[in-house]
Amino acid sequence: MTPDSERIYTAALCVIGDEILSGRTHDRNIAQVASWLQVQGIRLQEVRVVPDDEERIAATVNALRAEHDYLFTTGGIGPTHDDITVDAVARALGLAVVIHPEARAALDAYYRDKGGLTEGRLRMARVPEGAELIPNRMSGAPGIRLGNIFLMAGVPHITAGMLDALTGTLEGGRPLQSATIGGFIPESEVAILLRDVERAHNDCQIGSYPFFREGRVGSNFVIRSTDAERMAACRDDLRRQLEQSGWDVTEGGI
Amino acid sequence: MTPDSERIYTAALCVIGDEILSGRTHDRNIAQVASWLQVQGIRLQEVRVVPDDEERIAATVNALRAEHDYLFTTGGIGPTHDDITVDAVARALGLAVVIHPEARAALDAYYRDKGGLTEGRLRMARVPEGAELIPNRMSGAPGIRLGNIFLMAGVPHITAGMLDALTGTLEGGRPLQSATIGGFIPESEVAILLRDVERAHNDCQIGSYPFFREGRVGSNFVIRSTDAERMAACRDDLRRQLEQSGWDVTEGGI
Repeated sequence: MTPDSERIYTAALCVIGDEILSGRTHDRNIAQVASWLQVQGIRLQEVRVVPDDEERIAATVNALRAEHDYLFTTGGIGPTHDDITVDAVARALGLAVVIHPEARAALDAYYRDKGGLTEGRLRMARVPEGAELIPNRMSGAPGIRLGNIFLMAGVPHITAGMLDALTGTLEGGRPLQSATIGGFIPESEVAILLRDVERAHNDCQIGSYPFFREGRVGSNFVIRSTDAERMAACRDDLRRQLEQSGWDVTEGGI
Repeated sequence: MTPDSERIYTAALCVIGDEILSGRTHDRNIAQVASWLQVQGIRLQEVRVVPDDEERIAATVNALRAEHDYLFTTGGIGPTHDDITVDAVARALGLAVVIHPEARAALDAYYRDKGGLTEGRLRMARVPEGAELIPNRMSGAPGIRLGNIFLMAGVPHITAGMLDALTGTLEGGRPLQSATIGGFIPESEVAILLRDVERAHNDCQIGSYPFFREGRVGSNFVIRSTDAERMAACRDDLRRQLEQSGWDVTEGGI
């Protein structure tokens, strides 16, 4: 599709699962979905992590889908009783839950030599009425697309496969360009310089990310813009001013 | 404080930072805060990740503080122009931003041999009027407590130090107990068994977490309850039923 360079496309992500909120599982999907969206020219503007609670998921889905161009969910589409994402989304949209014939066929084929389609496995063919499937190369269970809502698996490598299947299919704007420079520079010593350089460059943002490494304090500075030329000018100006203040600057960050 | 065993105390976490939403930085604070809250007898019920945007942070803070007993934020309390959490929270609560004298003294002492208190560093002494400080053993910059709102650093090991300083100071209920059992058991083959065991045990939840390891499919099952005896009874029942179905079960999970 032709990107609309003026418009900013936004997305939200709803991460579903008690295991994230209990601290048992470290989420890896936020970063994965975020990075993927950047390449699609879509800006991830908000993430919410919610428990396995149908009412809370439904309320969150309704809040987020109204505010953003796209809504992604991860988690809760497996075969067990705590997998309630499909029911929650159907409830949010006032839709019935039906068995999708293609999903049933895919699961049937996948499990033919693995004990067949049990009642639990058949749960993974349930979709809100009218939904399309997102292919899943990793296992038989597909993701689900319903308009601008995308229901994906919670297991990160399966999520990755579903994102891969969606690559290039969503309308987006110009992807955000970014460049990083850094050094063993305490951010507190250059805070005013950073602010002033950002102010001097329209449509550019400078993020400052401190680190502690090899016993020394330093920072990476990430310059972002949807305009590659402006981004480069801002990066060069920042580098020059840091060097003029006596700092060693490393292109690409450290 | 004496825990109120009947009441469930809830918390929300607001993670602030463009670097998380761009995928550049993998969040580590959600799991860290979640695990810490469990030990305090407080249930993390929602997480929102929002960009470095004063209005959006303020709106999120107001939504979350109304719904939960406690609100924690991570990120955006450093010395640079993109550190706007204090301003956003002050705006949300209709408070002025003031320099906290103790924070100024702590920063003054910390930076005495490191170039002194620059304008950027002094930003880290700014607090919403009426706030108290959360000690930070790792660097001079403190966290900030304002009633039931806790503003903490984004750098995980500094966040950890602030949580440590808060340990045992917040009123909570009975901590959630949990036990894990697992095996090379495809969750789709035991989905109905899991559901039925959960239904048979009041006040217990069973979470099912599939994995792929050593080329084999398996699951860990986490049983949770605030009542240790009921939790143990549910775990034992689940183990017995899985074994009766022919599965090898490992205590503690695999």
